[in-house]
Amino acid sequence: MAPHRTPDSSRRSDRSRRAIHDAALALVGEVGYARTTIEGIAARAGVGKQTIYRWWPSKAAVLMDAFLDLSARQAAEVDAAGADGDYGIPDTGDLEADLKLVLRATVDELNDPAAEAPTRALAAEGIIDPALGAQFVENLLDPQLQLYVTRLRAAQEAGEVRADVDPRVALELLIAPLTHRWLLRTLPLTHAYADAVVDHALRGLLVRP
Amino acid sequence: MAPHRTPDSSRRSDRSRRAIHDAALALVGEVGYARTTIEGIAARAGVGKQTIYRWWPSKAAVLMDAFLDLSARQAAEVDAAGADGDYGIPDTGDLEADLKLVLRATVDELNDPAAEAPTRALAAEGIIDPALGAQFVENLLDPQLQLYVTRLRAAQEAGEVRADVDPRVALELLIAPLTHRWLLRTLPLTHAYADAVVDHALRGLLVRP
Repeated sequence: MAPHRTPDSSRRSDRSRRAIHDAALALVGEVGYARTTIEGIAARAGVGKQTIYRWWPSKAAVLMDAFLDLSARQAAEVDAAGADGDYGIPDTGDLEADLKLVLRATVDELNDPAAEAPTRALAAEGIIDPALGAQFVENLLDPQLQLYVTRLRAAQEAGEVRADVDPRVALELLIAPLTHRWLLRTLPLTHAYADAVVDHALRGLLVRP
Repeated sequence: MAPHRTPDSSRRSDRSRRAIHDAALALVGEVGYARTTIEGIAARAGVGKQTIYRWWPSKAAVLMDAFLDLSARQAAEVDAAGADGDYGIPDTGDLEADLKLVLRATVDELNDPAAEAPTRALAAEGIIDPALGAQFVENLLDPQLQLYVTRLRAAQEAGEVRADVDPRVALELLIAPLTHRWLLRTLPLTHAYADAVVDHALRGLLVRP
């Protein structure tokens, strides 16, 4: 029973939550995590700060939800475009093609200017603050990594990937080089690089490379 | 000609520089990069802030020198212990053994509690600030990565590594998984993990895995 949650008030709540998420992402991108406050988010979203405190215990919780919401929106966009993005790795029976598709989509997400500043702010904060970092890994990263474990296990069962490969280690050879290049800006993060990483990694994983 | 640089004043300068480096590393680890100031470094090092301004144009320059000095000291310790650490990859003719030695030493460096806080602070700041990140890559990271390129090229010339491997891509499959695990604290960073990364990566790189 939720007597006050009429369809109209529910839509208003959704609109407020989305406005708060967007304000949090924009602010943290502009002024950094340390200087982002609940008051600042409330002012930018056009809501009272009590509205935020009613729904979230801390700014870290707001930001984490904002990122989960952003990820879900990006996944929906990718789904609408007919690909699977990061949120389910296709299994066409061709591991190389499936991984290249997904890692190219990851390159596009990392290079998306709208997400870059808040993603860098959250990553930087997680590097300093172990508690925030653990939330980031648990809520955002691990669910994605698990998709690689699932896809690599399927390839093992299909006899495509060697039985002695540890999928949890193998996925880091695929993912970490992209993250490394993006975080440290060592060299351009391109589709060609994603393909090269898959080519180099797969030769060591496949039964018949 | 440096008429005032008698041996004694030179030793005093070296002591002051070292004190300033140590103060900068300690402060940035304790209060973060943003709240570290030239004044704070000077106070902690027991020198006047004009001493710092005479030698360095900015706090970023102080910190970068402090890290270069720290890296050089760590390399000297590793050398003294009879290994080569990050500063020259041995070439015993056995690429697997050489890489495992170096990557285990990297694991030890990353897990060193004395270096952890300032290294995380500098990494986090570089993720946010492209100019500082570029200095970090140019002065600290690229010289290390180049050692892997050199060692992998030698292994190609020796016929051990496939001719179609791009050393600059291959090294990221070796290095990035360790950095990824350390930065994001996804899973423990151990010698066993370093060995597993080498095993997985090398199978794809060797002519006869």
